[in-house]
Parts: sequence; C-alpha cells; structure tokens
Amino acid sequence: MNEVLNQINNRKSVRVFAERPIEGATKKEILQAALAAPTAGAMMLYSILDITDQALKDKLAVLCDNQPFIAKAPLVLIFLADYQRWYDAYCYADCKPRQPGEGDILLACADALIAAQNTVVAAESLGIGSCYIGDILENYAAVRDVLELPDYVLPAAMLVYGYPTESQRNRKKPARFDEQYLVFANRYHRLSQEEHEEMHRTRHEKSGLSGKNVCESIKAYCDRKYMSDFSLEMNRSAAEYLKNFRSK
Amino acid sequence: MNEVLNQINNRKSVRVFAERPIEGATKKEILQAALAAPTAGAMMLYSILDITDQALKDKLAVLCDNQPFIAKAPLVLIFLADYQRWYDAYCYADCKPRQPGEGDILLACADALIAAQNTVVAAESLGIGSCYIGDILENYAAVRDVLELPDYVLPAAMLVYGYPTESQRNRKKPARFDEQYLVFANRYHRLSQEEHEEMHRTRHEKSGLSGKNVCESIKAYCDRKYMSDFSLEMNRSAAEYLKNFRSK
Repeated sequence: MNEVLNQINNRKSVRVFAERPIEGATKKEILQAALAAPTAGAMMLYSILDITDQALKDKLAVLCDNQPFIAKAPLVLIFLADYQRWYDAYCYADCKPRQPGEGDILLACADALIAAQNTVVAAESLGIGSCYIGDILENYAAVRDVLELPDYVLPAAMLVYGYPTESQRNRKKPARFDEQYLVFANRYHRLSQEEHEEMHRTRHEKSGLSGKNVCESIKAYCDRKYMSDFSLEMNRSAAEYLKNFRSK
Repeated sequence: MNEVLNQINNRKSVRVFAERPIEGATKKEILQAALAAPTAGAMMLYSILDITDQALKDKLAVLCDNQPFIAKAPLVLIFLADYQRWYDAYCYADCKPRQPGEGDILLACADALIAAQNTVVAAESLGIGSCYIGDILENYAAVRDVLELPDYVLPAAMLVYGYPTESQRNRKKPARFDEQYLVFANRYHRLSQEEHEEMHRTRHEKSGLSGKNVCESIKAYCDRKYMSDFSLEMNRSAAEYLKNFRSK
C-alpha cells in the first residue's frame, strides 16, 4: 500500500487541537488543494469562506448544534455550493438565464464537497487533522444572516482543522461497516433484516463490543441522529435552502 | 510541496483509457479508500454500485447525455446518497421513524461525494485516471429503473476510471479561476461586474487565450452548460429525486 493510500486509510476526525496555529503558507497549500479539485465543466460552482474572526467562530460554534471545539479550531472553512456567481455572470452578459434549479444546486454541492475532501487529504499530508461539521446546514436564517449568503448559495459543508493533540493522534479510528453491505454489483441491493443485523454485529465485533444488542444500537442511532432536535432542525433548514432552487 | 499535494495539484480528468484492465486487488484498494472516508456520525450514508455488466455500461453511456467513453471505462462506480438503508433499519428495529427529509438527503450526498473524492485521490496514486459524470442525475425514471433504486436513494455521482493513454497523460490541466474570486474572509462577497470580467480575463490569460471576449465566453457557458438540453433535463430529474425527501 502506497503512502497516499496509507494516509487515507488511517485518517480519522480530529476534534481537539494542539495550541499551534496553522501558518499562512500552509493554509495556502490547503486552499490550493481545493481549487485544484475536479469541477463540473471547469465552472468551480463553489465559494469558500475562511472564518478568521473569533467572534464569528464563537457564533458558528453555537449555531452548529453548540459544539465549542469549533470555536477553538485554528482554521475554519465553509464550503458553499454557489450558483449565485454564475447566475450573476449570466445576467451581466445579458443571457436572460432561467432561475437556478434543483439539478444546479446538487451539482454545485458536489463541486463544493469534492473540493472540501481534497483539503482534508491535503491537510492530513501536512500533519493537520480535520473534522466535518454537517450542522452548518442548520439555522437557515441566522447562518445566512451572519455569512451574508445570497439566495443561490447553500453551505454544503464546514470543516475545522488543526494539529491534533497527542491523545487525538492515538485515538482508534471508528470501525466501518463491511464492504459487502455497501458495495453492490450493477444494481442496488436492499438489505434484509438478517443482513442489517449482521452488518451491525460485525461492526460491533470489530469495535470490541461483541455482546452489544443490535436492535438497541439502531434505536440509539435513531434517537440521537434522526429523531433528535439537531436532525429535525437540519431538515427544516435544508428545506428552506432548497426552496430557492425549486422549479416553478 | 509533498507528494500528496503534488498529485492533487496535477490531477486532471481522464476520458480516454488505455486498453488495460484494473486488476481486482487494485479495485479493492480504490473501494477501500471510499469506505475509509469521513462519514457523518459513522453512519456511511451511501452505497456504491460497481458496474461490471457491459450492457449496463452501454445503457448508462446513453442515459448520461450520450457519452460513449463511459462504456469503454474499465471501472465504473456510482456513488448513491442512501437513506434507505438506515430508514429500513429503523423500521426493523421498530423505531417508528419519520420520513427522510431534505437535510437527510443533503447529508447523505455529502457522505457519498466525500467517499467518491477519496477514490479519485486513491486512483491517482495508483496511476489510474478518473472522470466525474454529473449526468447520472438525469433521466430519473430510466436510471432508477435500470439500477433498481428505491425511494430514499439518489445518485450523487458517477465516476469512470482507467489507465490514461499517453495523450491524456500529456494533456494540459485546464486553468482554474484565481483564489481571490472564490475564497473570502468571514462573509460571502458578491462579485461586481468588473470582478466577474477580471476573473474570466485572468483565466483566459492563463489558458493562452488572452484576446478572448469575456462576454462571449460567459454566453457560451450559458448556452452549453445552463440552457442546454442536458442541464434542463438534470434539473427536471433532480426535482423528481428530491420530491421523495420533501417535508409534508
């Protein structure tokens, strides 16, 4: 296995950062990796916000489901799916464009996330850890307001970066589900109840939790990740963002 | 600049492949890079379809805006944003879940694209080129039918992979827009008409097209990428996918 694959396989999220800033030249290399990413039709359907203002970091830490470690990250980037820039350009060039639609914003989300993941890999190669904050999708009105987002922009991802503390470096990477439950030949395979149970049981075993009840584990996910306040808020807020792209 | 950054910066899309298969062990390494990717709450909200059936590749080449090179790619993977698996698990575990919503599917799209981009970087490290096919979002009914997709699944990206031909390897990477037009401190910056023009003019210069008219160039993008049949179809089709996730 080559070094790139090694880094990809061993990379895990980092949520506690050493008190060490990320130098300007290093930040530049991370941003450069974003801009070099594949992009639909060479259009670069994204913008990146570099959150340097501590008061704004503090606000975002609250707006993103109250996660104080966000405010302590030396580097915070928000990847915006952006159809505003091209829509505006079309208007300036007098193209009489239609309004951006659902396909446009999904394509822009793809561009934004592809660029975001390039920065994760780039940061890792520089010894810098990172963590995705999906919660940036929450609180539509407040987030749009503090980041001054126009209508045709949607925050596809936020990432925080920093040098990992010793204990974060030594943390075990959480086990993944096995390939056979996620990768299928040619057609989608809907898992049976037995396959669902096996999928969780084998992950429990890899995590040293062999005795754990699968049904209880799924219920805990449902409570914490799906029926929870943050999840309901994320769905409400995402619906608001997508309304701007709804075909009339 | 380290080797990882080098590879990221020099990577460009490959659409013509040498007649050389991708061996099973190599494919395994590429898929492993997807499964190792960061994922929201360790939930792996995606599935991957490995298209090995030549007749299906042929069909997808037509359904994805008639691009014959898709059918010739030795490896074709479709990254599905997948909330079906967890929704089914919640049902089996008797959690009485709500229907998946807009926030859920956007989070699943993020998971799918993060995993997809890891495979692009992994493939590159193995000397294998790749190309994203955004057109997999088109033709809702036909694509769902051939891939047997259930309601809570959406094709976030397709990728084709293969060893590049000599001429593809030597192709110049298309120039990107400059950082100043895409990366902003703290708040979104809406470009002025002058900035739009500068942004395009500086890219034309980097591409050896200094004399090119900016307005004509923007109009050509609008015609080919935005008002064109494939783009209208992508928007129609994406709206159909998203209807399944619309809050009632």
